[in-house]
Amino acid sequence: MTETRPFLSDNAAPVHPRVWEAMRAADSADNPYDGDALSARLDDAFTELFGRDCAAEWVATGTAANCLALATMCQPHGGVVCHEEAHIEVDEGGAPGFFLHGAKLMLCAGDGAKLTPEAIAALIDPIRPDVHQVQPHAIAITQASEYGRSYSAEELRALAAFASDRGLGLHMDGARFANSAAFLGNSAQQAARQAAGPVDSLAFGFIKNGGMSAEAVVLFDPGQADLVRYRCKRGGHLQCKGRYLAAQILAMLDDGLWFANARHANAAAQEIASGCEGRLLHPVEANELFVTMSADEREALRGQGFAFYDWGAQAARFVTSWDTREEDARALGQAIASL
Amino acid sequence: MTETRPFLSDNAAPVHPRVWEAMRAADSADNPYDGDALSARLDDAFTELFGRDCAAEWVATGTAANCLALATMCQPHGGVVCHEEAHIEVDEGGAPGFFLHGAKLMLCAGDGAKLTPEAIAALIDPIRPDVHQVQPHAIAITQASEYGRSYSAEELRALAAFASDRGLGLHMDGARFANSAAFLGNSAQQAARQAAGPVDSLAFGFIKNGGMSAEAVVLFDPGQADLVRYRCKRGGHLQCKGRYLAAQILAMLDDGLWFANARHANAAAQEIASGCEGRLLHPVEANELFVTMSADEREALRGQGFAFYDWGAQAARFVTSWDTREEDARALGQAIASL
Amino acid sequence: MTETRPFLSDNAAPVHPRVWEAMRAADSADNPYDGDALSARLDDAFTELFGRDCAAEWVATGTAANCLALATMCQPHGGVVCHEEAHIEVDEGGAPGFFLHGAKLMLCAGDGAKLTPEAIAALIDPIRPDVHQVQPHAIAITQASEYGRSYSAEELRALAAFASDRGLGLHMDGARFANSAAFLGNSAQQAARQAAGPVDSLAFGFIKNGGMSAEAVVLFDPGQADLVRYRCKRGGHLQCKGRYLAAQILAMLDDGLWFANARHANAAAQEIASGCEGRLLHPVEANELFVTMSADEREALRGQGFAFYDWGAQAARFVTSWDTREEDARALGQAIASL
Amino acid sequence: MTETRPFLSDNAAPVHPRVWEAMRAADSADNPYDGDALSARLDDAFTELFGRDCAAEWVATGTAANCLALATMCQPHGGVVCHEEAHIEVDEGGAPGFFLHGAKLMLCAGDGAKLTPEAIAALIDPIRPDVHQVQPHAIAITQASEYGRSYSAEELRALAAFASDRGLGLHMDGARFANSAAFLGNSAQQAARQAAGPVDSLAFGFIKNGGMSAEAVVLFDPGQADLVRYRCKRGGHLQCKGRYLAAQILAMLDDGLWFANARHANAAAQEIASGCEGRLLHPVEANELFVTMSADEREALRGQGFAFYDWGAQAARFVTSWDTREEDARALGQAIASL
Repeated sequence: MTETRPFLSDNAAPVHPRVWEAMRAADSADNPYDGDALSARLDDAFTELFGRDCAAEWVATGTAANCLALATMCQPHGGVVCHEEAHIEVDEGGAPGFFLHGAKLMLCAGDGAKLTPEAIAALIDPIRPDVHQVQPHAIAITQASEYGRSYSAEELRALAAFASDRGLGLHMDGARFANSAAFLGNSAQQAARQAAGPVDSLAFGFIKNGGMSAEAVVLFDPGQADLVRYRCKRGGHLQCKGRYLAAQILAMLDDGLWFANARHANAAAQEIASGCEGRLLHPVEANELFVTMSADEREALRGQGFAFYDWGAQAARFVTSWDTREEDARALGQAIASL
Repeated sequence: MTETRPFLSDNAAPVHPRVWEAMRAADSADNPYDGDALSARLDDAFTELFGRDCAAEWVATGTAANCLALATMCQPHGGVVCHEEAHIEVDEGGAPGFFLHGAKLMLCAGDGAKLTPEAIAALIDPIRPDVHQVQPHAIAITQASEYGRSYSAEELRALAAFASDRGLGLHMDGARFANSAAFLGNSAQQAARQAAGPVDSLAFGFIKNGGMSAEAVVLFDPGQADLVRYRCKRGGHLQCKGRYLAAQILAMLDDGLWFANARHANAAAQEIASGCEGRLLHPVEANELFVTMSADEREALRGQGFAFYDWGAQAARFVTSWDTREEDARALGQAIASL
Repeated sequence: MTETRPFLSDNAAPVHPRVWEAMRAADSADNPYDGDALSARLDDAFTELFGRDCAAEWVATGTAANCLALATMCQPHGGVVCHEEAHIEVDEGGAPGFFLHGAKLMLCAGDGAKLTPEAIAALIDPIRPDVHQVQPHAIAITQASEYGRSYSAEELRALAAFASDRGLGLHMDGARFANSAAFLGNSAQQAARQAAGPVDSLAFGFIKNGGMSAEAVVLFDPGQADLVRYRCKRGGHLQCKGRYLAAQILAMLDDGLWFANARHANAAAQEIASGCEGRLLHPVEANELFVTMSADEREALRGQGFAFYDWGAQAARFVTSWDTREEDARALGQAIASL
Repeated sequence: MTETRPFLSDNAAPVHPRVWEAMRAADSADNPYDGDALSARLDDAFTELFGRDCAAEWVATGTAANCLALATMCQPHGGVVCHEEAHIEVDEGGAPGFFLHGAKLMLCAGDGAKLTPEAIAALIDPIRPDVHQVQPHAIAITQASEYGRSYSAEELRALAAFASDRGLGLHMDGARFANSAAFLGNSAQQAARQAAGPVDSLAFGFIKNGGMSAEAVVLFDPGQADLVRYRCKRGGHLQCKGRYLAAQILAMLDDGLWFANARHANAAAQEIASGCEGRLLHPVEANELFVTMSADEREALRGQGFAFYDWGAQAARFVTSWDTREEDARALGQAIASL
């Protein structure tokens, strides 16, 4: 029987050994909730990473991280501009409607699931500034995007300038932030700063990248931390043994583990991409590949033990992870090239 | 220096070794969210324990567990009767208002933070059945109560009969359900059934009793499972590596670990209670003690290395846990007796 | 100076003399809220009109009427399918998000702002039946549509069959229901039944048709009346002198005033339409006309005293009302024909 | 048969002739919603009355007026301190929970349904300033109170100083504001300023005092007007023929009609009070009387044609209105004195 070579998703990968170690090391009792010594270190850890003041809170899901951050920018009667295929619109079960008390997602088109100032302007400029129409309060972008595209530092600056100009908040869904950073930069610090650009808040994902159950809400205006903390508790997200979540994040930040893991995943994606000439629906700028492929071809690959999702009727999606074996990636690239 | 002998709370105790083992054993990738093999076993595991059909979902906090269960019983324009000192009223940051979309908590008095049909009737009977007043939709009780009291099987039957009679749902906040069960029954199964009685839903707590980050929402009407599952996702509570939460719960259920841990904690509480003659504010029916004690006496105990919370100006609260050392409990009981 | 001949909208027209009379006649004190003798007559009045059991509540705006009805069909975690240009999506300031506690509007395309089973199926069939995606709970259609189109009895039957088949509620926004009825039928009763078809609920508009401040929420499942009544109060919509609202509605129903007024407005619209050959963007099936017209042409019309809104850069919208003077409509039709 | 002499409530009294006239005068079409010439005059009218900058919006119910104002002061995760018998707590069907998205009402005791800084401090000082407990964001008082008591200018200053000191907003529910003003002051302007004191917002009631369907939300920080206007629309409260509501309010303000009406009602209340020696449960400081009275005595009064509500088992409530006939009030006072 052929061994399974998994490229389904990064969201169910095992936990990295160094994360396990850090969790075990957190086992002795400490203050409950986020009053423990590890949680207390998060603000400084992210401030150092990003080189600007920030407050950071752990939370168990990206959905909660995104929504808690958006609640600092969008009132219940406002709207959040996002891509029409954004995860918050398509795959979070209506969570923004819940956390933002009925605020509206305003759907914007854009190549590669990325937004541009021009596309946003085209969406919001026709909105009459009167009470009959929901007004935009914030913009949410995804780094890397739903199609594995990364915003460059310039693109982020342009979006931030636009947002500031229109009085809108700018949030980044970074479920795969590490992968964009690894694509854009050369060292953990420099890459983190480049990939985040001047956004107001970031849902920094660790779970897909070797963590177990901790993402970080990073607020570049630390004055918003209290709002997030009250809403976090109110949302049932303040775990009493929070030190195990803080430990995960600190382990990922320690010595750039998050960056190394993402580089590994990205390298595997590039390895696969090298076999996909003429087939790629999107440039590979993180750890996802969208590859044109007939049903027969997909069947052939699966027959060789590769696991992955169909992407519509004519394509397949492959996702690499921190634990993807190099030989599997190489084999997959070659298998696709040989189709 | 005196070694710390901790009786602050059970909510920050370490994770039990068997729970750690089960989590490690879950490390190999499986389907994400609650699609994994471990999560799939929960319904059956609780059905067997309680001897009646139920659906069960993991969730990371008791706050979320309570609120998701209550959402099956109370519409946004309704109310939930609870004790005026109930955790959902006093210590959950307004979470019920969030999850129930503005429904009202209707506060009822009661000895030992317990409710009775008579007290509830006195509260709700004067409510005019018209649209100007919020109507009760559900009752929430806490087992063990905020004062470490346990509802007997008879008391639960009476409450359930009352609830049914008035067309109200009946939910049990079981953050320390295991401790009540261990107080009321002699074997895991029999105790679980006795302590839950005929409630409609139970937030079964594991975190205070040796778990890390998993409680169970147990629905005795499995038809409500879908509602809870959609609301769980919408609340940002559906973790993608859910197998690590399912593993915790299964480990706790396996061979009655939950019951053994609670018995241990309860025994330690009784050991302490034996030194508290004439000082107990409430009978000790779980793992908490509320003990009359002057400020000087508390200082004296702290000087001996005992850690605990003040309970107002004239008393102290001691909480035992699954990992309380017998010698610490004995020493504390003797120290109090010697005051 | 040229006299103004108003075709801006029907939403600010005067109140009909018979409505004024009925309000004055309601002046003597009665029970407050909806406990008065006039409010008590609404259920029967609508039951007679529609020939099937219904419950009816007055409310001061169509926005509230729509949202209260939708709350009987759509839970907070669900969605309401509507046309992408529907009033509830575009022009109600996010009210559905508020009243439905964050439920999602699911936007469907469709000619003339009308929905078809096929278009709805194309929208909702790809939704995965899992918790990550918001599931549709209801459909909302508008009679007459945002482009003055009317659903025929057959179209309504098809939509109702589809809705029933999929387990969805079917609501009708009838801000201009009277105009559709007058287009479709020949007598008040028969027209009302035809225009409503087998929908589950109807926001029956009177304000644009000669009323002052009263619309009716008509529930064809009277069992839903309690929910609407509690939510109405909770939304601050239960006026204490409700008899003045009930009086308006009863006056409009009395002797088919609603129908006569709408026939008048529709006739005026047809009069105008007769001058618009080759210019109509949509068939005129109610009291609105969307007419291709250059900027110069619009200026010319305005110079003749006609008031109306631009509709984008290349068209104009004309709305007739119960008080449109026949000579104004005739003059407008001729003026357009002469452009 | 004895003629009915009504003292049930002021909430269902007829509409004052001058209000009717003003509504009729508003009949010619104008811009819809609040874009008409009458609505445009409200800000100035209230600014002149109160002698400080304010923004004012009409809305059809006191419930909506209170909730919209409170939404400017209290976030969804916060709380509003109010009296435990306040209308917003007891009789508005949970509307604050709806409009404030689940914020909590924090119930305070107080003589005559009035709040004092001391009572509020006693309620909120024990609240731990952490995320587990809902923090107060605002205070809501009622002028006149649920027992017909009025806050003096000094009491209001003390409350405002306290609110400011604690960073809380201060809202006044003025369903019977006019009656308090008429009790406290001698001319419309001076009385209005005295009765409102330095609150941040006021729900100024007109409906109980001769209006039909218009209350005013008065914001003493005009910067909050936009929030209220967006939320008003979102709540379905922006009527399209708003000019009829503005007309009511302007008619009431014109030449102090609101004040004259309230003086009349208050005088009638005092006339009755003069017959209630030894029976009054509360000083009569507006237009309500709470009078100790046995069941037999009440029956006797009813036999003489007086209509009123029981107030528990041992008392009766009498409410006077702008249209109470002097002879009825005199007769009632004498009848009570003769019991």
